[in-house]
Amino acid sequence: MPDRVYLDWNATTPLRVEARAAMLAAYELIGNPSSVHAEGREARWLVEDARAALATAVGALARNVVFTSAGTEANALALSPGLRGRSGEPVRRLLISAIEHASVLAGGRFPAENINQIRVARSGVVDLDHLRELLTGGPPALVSIMAANNETGALQPVEEAAGIVHAAGGILHVDAIQALGKIAFNINAMGADLATFSAHKIGGPKGVGALVMTEGVAALEPVLRGGGQELGRRAGTENVAGIAGFGAAVKAALQALPEDAERMTSLRDRLGNGLQEIAGATVFSDDVRRLPNTVLFTAPGLKAETAVIGFDLEGIAVSSGSACSSGKVQPSHVLSAMGHDATVAQGAVRLSLGWSTEPEDINRALEAWRRLGNTLLRG
Amino acid sequence: MPDRVYLDWNATTPLRVEARAAMLAAYELIGNPSSVHAEGREARWLVEDARAALATAVGALARNVVFTSAGTEANALALSPGLRGRSGEPVRRLLISAIEHASVLAGGRFPAENINQIRVARSGVVDLDHLRELLTGGPPALVSIMAANNETGALQPVEEAAGIVHAAGGILHVDAIQALGKIAFNINAMGADLATFSAHKIGGPKGVGALVMTEGVAALEPVLRGGGQELGRRAGTENVAGIAGFGAAVKAALQALPEDAERMTSLRDRLGNGLQEIAGATVFSDDVRRLPNTVLFTAPGLKAETAVIGFDLEGIAVSSGSACSSGKVQPSHVLSAMGHDATVAQGAVRLSLGWSTEPEDINRALEAWRRLGNTLLRG
Repeated sequence: MPDRVYLDWNATTPLRVEARAAMLAAYELIGNPSSVHAEGREARWLVEDARAALATAVGALARNVVFTSAGTEANALALSPGLRGRSGEPVRRLLISAIEHASVLAGGRFPAENINQIRVARSGVVDLDHLRELLTGGPPALVSIMAANNETGALQPVEEAAGIVHAAGGILHVDAIQALGKIAFNINAMGADLATFSAHKIGGPKGVGALVMTEGVAALEPVLRGGGQELGRRAGTENVAGIAGFGAAVKAALQALPEDAERMTSLRDRLGNGLQEIAGATVFSDDVRRLPNTVLFTAPGLKAETAVIGFDLEGIAVSSGSACSSGKVQPSHVLSAMGHDATVAQGAVRLSLGWSTEPEDINRALEAWRRLGNTLLRG
Repeated sequence: MPDRVYLDWNATTPLRVEARAAMLAAYELIGNPSSVHAEGREARWLVEDARAALATAVGALARNVVFTSAGTEANALALSPGLRGRSGEPVRRLLISAIEHASVLAGGRFPAENINQIRVARSGVVDLDHLRELLTGGPPALVSIMAANNETGALQPVEEAAGIVHAAGGILHVDAIQALGKIAFNINAMGADLATFSAHKIGGPKGVGALVMTEGVAALEPVLRGGGQELGRRAGTENVAGIAGFGAAVKAALQALPEDAERMTSLRDRLGNGLQEIAGATVFSDDVRRLPNTVLFTAPGLKAETAVIGFDLEGIAVSSGSACSSGKVQPSHVLSAMGHDATVAQGAVRLSLGWSTEPEDINRALEAWRRLGNTLLRG
């Protein structure tokens, strides 16, 4: 599609050259990584190389990386009742922030009655006082707080949360899917006991994810059982090419990170300022630290569904909140949790940038918004 | 690896040209199939095209095809307590043949106390009298019987089993992973209510599978929850390229099937006869109908682990039973279920053929067996 501008990087990102090359090479390998013959061993090597790459990137040991079919499966695997952390006591309840991704909100294998939501402030940042309150007095909890929100881009106080969770004998899971490759993320520095990642947010293929654990996390209950793959923690023949692509994307993304983050931040700020200047848009969470690539905005009278189609017709691919849904635009649970009413929660548009976004793309988006703002907000 | 002969097609198959091309094209598409913009719609179209291809190939409606990350996940999804079939009553127990794949033996989401195994005869064929006996008097059952066994290749009496299961108000799941592309498989002709498939057994990529249902199967409980993908039956961003490759492989495999089956049967029989003539090998299930591509054999004193390594050093990739394990050679649960003792169950080697197997590959395998038989069976 010539002349299109893709600004929906929080949904997917263009495949990196390195990832494509790794996958093409992987497709030439016939073997099943579980097979003992030479073909099997070659496929195994690719998988283990990718595992080491991800482990290195996030400060984990390779043996604590479990590849999954996507972020959703990684989150489902992480939310495992009975998990044991440093305190040795199994977790018996789940606390999740109200702005988590749908796959975390689903609660994994915790029964609904053992799940509580942690409030967030109007800024889009999780309320640590409420976390403390929820932790007080109950049985050991698994707490799930994302590193950065996928709609607003707001960074969450993971490190501080880790201290609070550990002091209460709990375990912290961090959905770091939006953070990987956009901000520095080391599971030990963050204090995360478990973290989840997805390949297609960093220029890898769609349909590959990973759960990474720190040493000492035990009693993870598999979601998929049968074969002994992934050290018995995830059965099923590995998506070898996808995993190889993930590994290559991780290496490339981490290498480019410092430079990309600086460039993206500058483009993001130009975009956010421009949107606000043109038609009275408001950018969410712009008073807190955000991902360098995400701008979620609204304007009085804006309808997200119409706006996304309007941008699309202008040649700009944008999103309205999470794309991991049925394609229908529903009120954003993130904005609702931040205290916005239904009109605002259905009126927010997200533009997100990435490693190949050019200044010209921002110009095009701003021009489109100038025309759309005039049309859509007239009523 | 030049001059290697790959005879482990029941583990994986070489990627078909058509599948590779489809995946390369898919990698050029950036969009997330759940996104409403043009890029998203293009990715969606690829996924739906593959869905239609698989549906057509097995006689189902496209809306009843659920893509998963592999056969293991498809089987886990199929084994869903509470499923309702034509009788409308939810199933409350699970009956599985003793020779099912590890992912079926794991029992899905049925508690262990609600699972019973159906015996198999020495021929490797499921005992339908035992099925009848198990069905008598209990609550409605989900019955899982594979179309063809992955170790022996023995075809199972699925059609007859369907009649028995339905008469008892039950539901039949058929793991058709080994059958697809090797024998004709239509879910309606077979009487299967649910069937599972895997891309990498027909020349598609590793890490993609599917569950296919007939109309009227209801109350499938998702394994992965969150986003509304796959009509709410399987959350998670789709492995778009993998699914596209699956679709392309299905089309190619089904087109080639009649010719391939004839050619493979002839090669298989030459291989089986040759093995037996050379060093007193016995081919399992050779008195019943088998897949056109599978030969599982043993010989007195043969150790599978040593034999697989021996073949590998001779340049021939073969397997010892299921490859979906930790790489360790354990006694085959299939041969144990057929009444063989531990020595035999640890002494069986599987050679399996596929669409690109040449007569010369069979010659090479037989030459290798001549040398290995002399060495390995000397003691």
